[in-house]
Amino acid sequence: MHGDPPLSIPPAHPDWLDAELRERDATAFVHVGSGSMLRYLTGYEGHATTVFVYTPDATVLCVPQTVESVPDSPERVRRFDARQKHPGQVAVDVLDELLESRVETVLTPPTIPHDAALYLSAEYELASTDAIERARREKAESERTRIAVAQGVAATGLDRAREVLAAADRSGDRLLWEGDVLTTGRLRDAINTEIATAGGVPCNGTRIGVGGPPESTRTDVAIPPATTIAVSVAPREPEGYHGHLTRTLVVDGDGGWERRAHVAVTNARSAALATLDAGAGVTTGELHRELVAELGAYGFDPSPESGDVIANLGHGVGLDPREPPAVDGTTELSAGTILAVRPGLADAQQGYVALGDVIVVEEDGVRRLVEYPLSMEPGS
Amino acid sequence: MHGDPPLSIPPAHPDWLDAELRERDATAFVHVGSGSMLRYLTGYEGHATTVFVYTPDATVLCVPQTVESVPDSPERVRRFDARQKHPGQVAVDVLDELLESRVETVLTPPTIPHDAALYLSAEYELASTDAIERARREKAESERTRIAVAQGVAATGLDRAREVLAAADRSGDRLLWEGDVLTTGRLRDAINTEIATAGGVPCNGTRIGVGGPPESTRTDVAIPPATTIAVSVAPREPEGYHGHLTRTLVVDGDGGWERRAHVAVTNARSAALATLDAGAGVTTGELHRELVAELGAYGFDPSPESGDVIANLGHGVGLDPREPPAVDGTTELSAGTILAVRPGLADAQQGYVALGDVIVVEEDGVRRLVEYPLSMEPGS
Repeated sequence: MHGDPPLSIPPAHPDWLDAELRERDATAFVHVGSGSMLRYLTGYEGHATTVFVYTPDATVLCVPQTVESVPDSPERVRRFDARQKHPGQVAVDVLDELLESRVETVLTPPTIPHDAALYLSAEYELASTDAIERARREKAESERTRIAVAQGVAATGLDRAREVLAAADRSGDRLLWEGDVLTTGRLRDAINTEIATAGGVPCNGTRIGVGGPPESTRTDVAIPPATTIAVSVAPREPEGYHGHLTRTLVVDGDGGWERRAHVAVTNARSAALATLDAGAGVTTGELHRELVAELGAYGFDPSPESGDVIANLGHGVGLDPREPPAVDGTTELSAGTILAVRPGLADAQQGYVALGDVIVVEEDGVRRLVEYPLSMEPGS
Repeated sequence: MHGDPPLSIPPAHPDWLDAELRERDATAFVHVGSGSMLRYLTGYEGHATTVFVYTPDATVLCVPQTVESVPDSPERVRRFDARQKHPGQVAVDVLDELLESRVETVLTPPTIPHDAALYLSAEYELASTDAIERARREKAESERTRIAVAQGVAATGLDRAREVLAAADRSGDRLLWEGDVLTTGRLRDAINTEIATAGGVPCNGTRIGVGGPPESTRTDVAIPPATTIAVSVAPREPEGYHGHLTRTLVVDGDGGWERRAHVAVTNARSAALATLDAGAGVTTGELHRELVAELGAYGFDPSPESGDVIANLGHGVGLDPREPPAVDGTTELSAGTILAVRPGLADAQQGYVALGDVIVVEEDGVRRLVEYPLSMEPGS
């Protein structure tokens, strides 16, 4: 039976995890769950709740018997019967086998499921660690390569959005495309088709907002002319890493609020990238302040209470389409951090304008992964 | 600013949650997290960690300030600054406001994040409940409709897989399609393109296994003739519900093991559906035993140790592509339960054959959502 490629990203015995165990005077690390943290730690991506136990001497991955396809490292993979044994008990049993005594400290992510944590804390001294979050923040070269692939697919998806909107004809207060009313659902399907054709997986990252922020797939409304159309794409490439690209387009705009907002957002974007030109060491809070100040300089009230300035100015990108760090707070950006920098403005009456691009922080500067046109005109 | 449609699935004050609170002598229910449980409880789908507090008198959803688009029920939605306050503390503050005293019992899902649970249990008596899991198991009519839509999209995706494989030409130990070697990656992209065109979102549910079980998107290998190709699709429709369809195809098969396995799996499938003809009241364990016994009757060793019989014979389908109940254990199937019934056989040397269909358990029988051909021949 075939399996996924061997556990490959990150290395099986990462230095950062060994260092964290030493620093915290702990002997093991345990994660219970599924999703991107498990994928990061093991290379394995599955639906089922899985147990990961790590010591400097051993790495053990326990998956339920019902899982068919697991990474082909048989010496590290064990099976358990989820009907008979709780994942928390599975973790305790593996620890009992690997460790010499129960007085030792075991680290877990703070968000480990509470039921599993209760099994563990009944037998071991439990402490939480954000080491995985910190490690995930600095992307390895192989991860940056994957995100660049995803970002190329994102650009293809946005190209398609521009094509569709450029080909749409105005008919009163609606747009027609290929003989029918153009809705956010039809535009999303066209973008997703392009993303899939280009080898990406659209997941739920393709979001479109008409006169407001990009919306989940639950929304399907007619797209009118002279209204902001915020298109956000975050496709996944086959290895599991995401891209992020946001552009705002307007068909037959009247050049009012959205034109002024677009100038402000474009300049805030340049200012933010200039701030990052200093390279590693800038904090997410400094970036946030620079974006807000620049938007304010164009007459948009920078206080959160006004409702003018949108709140989400950016976030990390990786195995999750949105992951830490948020563009605020006090996180110091280190070389290898990948961010979606995403200045934007919202006005309940006038619309929504945002520009989001993925950048890599480097020792001595910042690099954009893909250069993509900023224009609001679909046809330009 | 626009928002998602109002909280609509399930009703804002579900009877089952009120009943659970009464039965457990509890006064509130709290969930902290993101993902499908939050989506089920509130209609809201987001990346950010969100706090949901429920009492029979009030429903409060607290989202981080950085979230742009939330359900438009302003009286129920509050904002918090995730830099200043932990979601667990947010939950405690809302409870303090809604409840009369701190001696009351608060229910949470067992898998609530441990850090949030520590905030809560410091102030309130905490107890876990599986009421949400039980409620999610019985799909409302509106949910069944959505899953039927997703299942129609799944059939379209499988149609495309059959078309591609039927059009492929044998060239030695490989298949050529549109002038190039046909790989699992190319086949997946073709299926995903079709799913997106049909208005579905493929997410990561499109999995293809060559000579083995369906694999994650990390695998990209050439597809040879005379080898089992297991194709599994689980697209999402716009509201967030999934379908599930698994078929096994062979190009230029030699009619050996895979033919025998296909007959056995086809008959196990019929037997399982006949078992379900009794309607509500059958247990998942009975279904499991029926499937294993029928596969055994065709000479395939039904013991888990042999490696012959595959482990995953089915699972629930809904807001998650795989959700409870698993097809094993002691869960009694009630009217409204939606299952992917998925008999299959694996042999490390010979290949992998599985057939997966979505069924609805009804009071007095079982209904398949989509009838789809069982044949292993792509062109038939």
